[in-house]
Amino acid sequence: MKKVCFGVDIGGTAVKAGLFDAEGKLLDKWSFPTKVTGQGKDIITDVAEFIKKKVAELNLQNEDILGIGVGIPGPVKDNSDVLELANLGQGYFNIEEEMHKYVDFKVKAGNDANVAALGELWQGGGKGYNNMVLATLGTGVGGGIIINGTVIAGSNGAGGEIGHIFVNKEETDTCGCGKQGCLEQYASATGIVRLAKQALEASEEPSKLRNAKEISAKTVFDCAKDGDALAMEVVDKACEYLGIAFAHIAQVVDPEAFVIGGGVSKAGEILTENIKKHYNKYVMDALKNKEFKLATLGNDAGIYGSAMLVLSAVER
Amino acid sequence: MKKVCFGVDIGGTAVKAGLFDAEGKLLDKWSFPTKVTGQGKDIITDVAEFIKKKVAELNLQNEDILGIGVGIPGPVKDNSDVLELANLGQGYFNIEEEMHKYVDFKVKAGNDANVAALGELWQGGGKGYNNMVLATLGTGVGGGIIINGTVIAGSNGAGGEIGHIFVNKEETDTCGCGKQGCLEQYASATGIVRLAKQALEASEEPSKLRNAKEISAKTVFDCAKDGDALAMEVVDKACEYLGIAFAHIAQVVDPEAFVIGGGVSKAGEILTENIKKHYNKYVMDALKNKEFKLATLGNDAGIYGSAMLVLSAVER
Repeated sequence: MKKVCFGVDIGGTAVKAGLFDAEGKLLDKWSFPTKVTGQGKDIITDVAEFIKKKVAELNLQNEDILGIGVGIPGPVKDNSDVLELANLGQGYFNIEEEMHKYVDFKVKAGNDANVAALGELWQGGGKGYNNMVLATLGTGVGGGIIINGTVIAGSNGAGGEIGHIFVNKEETDTCGCGKQGCLEQYASATGIVRLAKQALEASEEPSKLRNAKEISAKTVFDCAKDGDALAMEVVDKACEYLGIAFAHIAQVVDPEAFVIGGGVSKAGEILTENIKKHYNKYVMDALKNKEFKLATLGNDAGIYGSAMLVLSAVER
Repeated sequence: MKKVCFGVDIGGTAVKAGLFDAEGKLLDKWSFPTKVTGQGKDIITDVAEFIKKKVAELNLQNEDILGIGVGIPGPVKDNSDVLELANLGQGYFNIEEEMHKYVDFKVKAGNDANVAALGELWQGGGKGYNNMVLATLGTGVGGGIIINGTVIAGSNGAGGEIGHIFVNKEETDTCGCGKQGCLEQYASATGIVRLAKQALEASEEPSKLRNAKEISAKTVFDCAKDGDALAMEVVDKACEYLGIAFAHIAQVVDPEAFVIGGGVSKAGEILTENIKKHYNKYVMDALKNKEFKLATLGNDAGIYGSAMLVLSAVER
């Protein structure tokens, strides 16, 4: 039997799991609802039970299994200590220890955004790079920073928390984190809709957005691509804040490429081209002209990345 | 004979060199003027000749010498390629290769600010940490970022270039780098003097600074410590921009501590306390309450750090 590993991505509503061979080929994948009752720990128990069931179903032997990688929606330290699972009920615990109560093989855990970055680096939009930043523009803005092939988890697992980079001194609305002027307030799907509504209120300027039944980030990008001036301004503003934040990141870690993922990234090159234009204004010469790429793994980035997390920790 | 190594710090006006034992004890140190004629390469030749002379003088045998570490005032890649020596004449070359034309032992090179950070981590204000940011506030603002004990040099050697983090959208004066609103314009010695002169011009407010024959960063801090309101405002402004930039850095790499070095850091705790206050306003909760320390090695940080650079690359 060829050696395999599991990559698990724990989300707020669903757990995704994939079975991979040692070269990173996705062999099968599944999804089930995240257990939201009880403590954060109970989710881990649930995941471990699921893996045990799959191992039995697929008739896998322990010696065929290289390990399980797990992506978690919260800060995770390098030693797999979970500090906080704000969205999934509190609880401080060590994921490796918890999982080992149920399964015998190697366990490695990482923050979901960091793990997604590893996935994109390994098999997605960041393939071929060794120093890469993944910005995930979804309901919020997440980030994963990889330098010399290794995730920068930081001293408390809060490395790559780029959604809360401060970018606007003028902001009066408060971000979910309690601060004002976070990148997430402008560049998440929610943030883009907020900017669009503000722009519509601030002027009488005609715009296709005024006819939309409901404004989504997609509507804004679609109208901008159609040449709608107000929508283009909104896109430009979101991309300027992304350019500023990326400039900050580059001054700190000097990556080779920025990869844009998450639902908003479906807008495509309008996003990468526009961010690049602004980025170059805010960064020193030696850091200009980085690569700006779109993520390619979509919702599977997390399972790829958690598989890579465990594969890179074991002898193959 | 006990094993030794050399740590060299090439500056714009002087080259500093130190002889260290394998445990990092400084045994002797010297300084000589930087050769500023010819190409950047010629400086390396000069340094190599100096080391050869010292090896002969001290009657050192090749087998006693663990290597030479060299700190360079410009971007250096992990492989010791030097990309640019703007202040020391241009020239693209590999430092290890250049040095090996003259000396036989191990050579490792790094950017001067990064190397100083390693020095402070090893034997100075950052002792005991594994994840640390050194901000050097001198004529300019330099930075060195260490994560898991390793310098983040970045893909082109421009990692940790924190002096050019964009912090102020309102700025109209241009920084040496060609951009507007860089941290260096407010937090370097020159930047603090600039802020003080602006404040004096902008109002009639009485201030001891108005009686100063020449305003230096030291004058500003001395007056602020004396309770001079205008000087205190200037210090507060410089520290706010530092707090903002440090917040950006923390959102990217989540260090344990910020260490402040360079001539300006002689101001002492007024600086660290003030930066910390502002930092906490601009950073998410999980990143609050980092340590803010003063550097302790002064001008020797570079020779300590380059010694560490080579010691960490050899078997001891």
